[in-house]
Amino acid sequence: MHDVIIIGTGAAGISAALTLKQLNKDFLWIGPKNLSYKINSAEKIRNYPGLSSVSGKEMKEAFIKQINDMGIEILERQVTGVYDLSTHYAILCGQDTYEAKSIILGLGVETIKPVEGEIELLGQGVSYCATCDGFLYKGKEITVVASSKEFEHEAKYLASLASKVNYIGLYKDIDMNLTNVEILKGMPNKITKENKKMKLHLKDSIIESDGIFMLKASISPAVLVPGLEAVEGHIVVDRNMKTNLNGVFACGDCTGRPYQYAKAVGEGNVAAHSVVNYLNILK
Amino acid sequence: MHDVIIIGTGAAGISAALTLKQLNKDFLWIGPKNLSYKINSAEKIRNYPGLSSVSGKEMKEAFIKQINDMGIEILERQVTGVYDLSTHYAILCGQDTYEAKSIILGLGVETIKPVEGEIELLGQGVSYCATCDGFLYKGKEITVVASSKEFEHEAKYLASLASKVNYIGLYKDIDMNLTNVEILKGMPNKITKENKKMKLHLKDSIIESDGIFMLKASISPAVLVPGLEAVEGHIVVDRNMKTNLNGVFACGDCTGRPYQYAKAVGEGNVAAHSVVNYLNILK
Repeated sequence: MHDVIIIGTGAAGISAALTLKQLNKDFLWIGPKNLSYKINSAEKIRNYPGLSSVSGKEMKEAFIKQINDMGIEILERQVTGVYDLSTHYAILCGQDTYEAKSIILGLGVETIKPVEGEIELLGQGVSYCATCDGFLYKGKEITVVASSKEFEHEAKYLASLASKVNYIGLYKDIDMNLTNVEILKGMPNKITKENKKMKLHLKDSIIESDGIFMLKASISPAVLVPGLEAVEGHIVVDRNMKTNLNGVFACGDCTGRPYQYAKAVGEGNVAAHSVVNYLNILK
Repeated sequence: MHDVIIIGTGAAGISAALTLKQLNKDFLWIGPKNLSYKINSAEKIRNYPGLSSVSGKEMKEAFIKQINDMGIEILERQVTGVYDLSTHYAILCGQDTYEAKSIILGLGVETIKPVEGEIELLGQGVSYCATCDGFLYKGKEITVVASSKEFEHEAKYLASLASKVNYIGLYKDIDMNLTNVEILKGMPNKITKENKKMKLHLKDSIIESDGIFMLKASISPAVLVPGLEAVEGHIVVDRNMKTNLNGVFACGDCTGRPYQYAKAVGEGNVAAHSVVNYLNILK
């Protein structure tokens, strides 16, 4: 049995792992060795302190170097369930089970039902993050697909940069009354790229622009961890990154916005310290 | 009037500034251009994601490069008070006032607790700021308590005004070799005032002078911002880094443990995003 199992190799999981290693704790770390899909597709990151204007790939290389420098291993498995056995937790990876006294969840945000071409073109004209990639489209024409009203402020930020925004809101009461925003109707079903132009295919029409922002909510991690409290797809945590389940901590995008590297590494660090306190009390 | 004033140039303030800059927000950033005392003295940092095993100086260089790359300015002033004017905030720096709709506090943590009488006599013979109050003591005798070597240049400035300086340095390798400076040893434990004379009580002696300067890395948050809720010296914040004061956000060591760079940059990033949401609602 491990002291801790960390699930997820995004920025939050990395930060938790580095800190637990530094504190000489026994832990198992499960996730893709290639780290998160998000980091692999990020075009340019300018506001992560310490790395001045890096691409996602450059940041990933810095992270992987550091993981190797610290001698930390990643177990590349897909976690299919996390079960509370009252005295500890069982983590299911297909047919195999791993056990631990405590869990750190750095699950990221999973987008539901990406349209055809969306994942393939992520980082090549398709973005999930206005804060991250908005500045790439200064003076250009973009298309924004927002799954709910909460994304309107991000869309307005994009409108302050872009020359024109084609806006598709998949919700009621759209309030995007800006001179350079055109409200369009329809359900996206495909994204393609031709001659550096992005094409969003609707049922009866195609919207062409320089970039497409897909702003949407996440699926509930409660599916992965039965009994875990989540609101609108985000795990509920306190300031110590504790969830409602004793010994389960969460960090990074899965706990809510802003979806930012800095926030994720901060929460991973706090989660690691909270786990150490938890293990000390268990003894 | 600025949209935001950030106070503090530690990791939290840096993260907030980089993010506000990226989001095209108008802000004023106040603090030491040499960044925090803490970063200048850190020997080796291994668990900050992205910078593998760096010294504090190397991390500082990376931060300063990034601040310059982004074209961000730092105003090097000592903030002596933050006052709620109900519609906005006034920030006092000695004789000058700056105004903003919102505030981000990245104050760091006060490692040296105020001695008895210190807070009560602030502005009545006790000062935290050589630049602000030094001129009041031209030709007079003063006592200076400095928490670290970085304050020697402020003490030397005071020595150029005062007739005599009684100097207590709470650190090693004191270098204050001036004719009108007397180096004294001891740990201050009380300040009293009698007949316009200030008395600094040490274990076995009392130093009497016209004024006492307590030079330290950070000021107790509740002293700097009247009405701010703090518990055991830490500013109380929620998950969005909101304090009890409308429009005032806090981040980094001043909000509590763990005192870690990763936590500080995470909280600075969240504070910046929360300020943007706050400003959007104000409109």
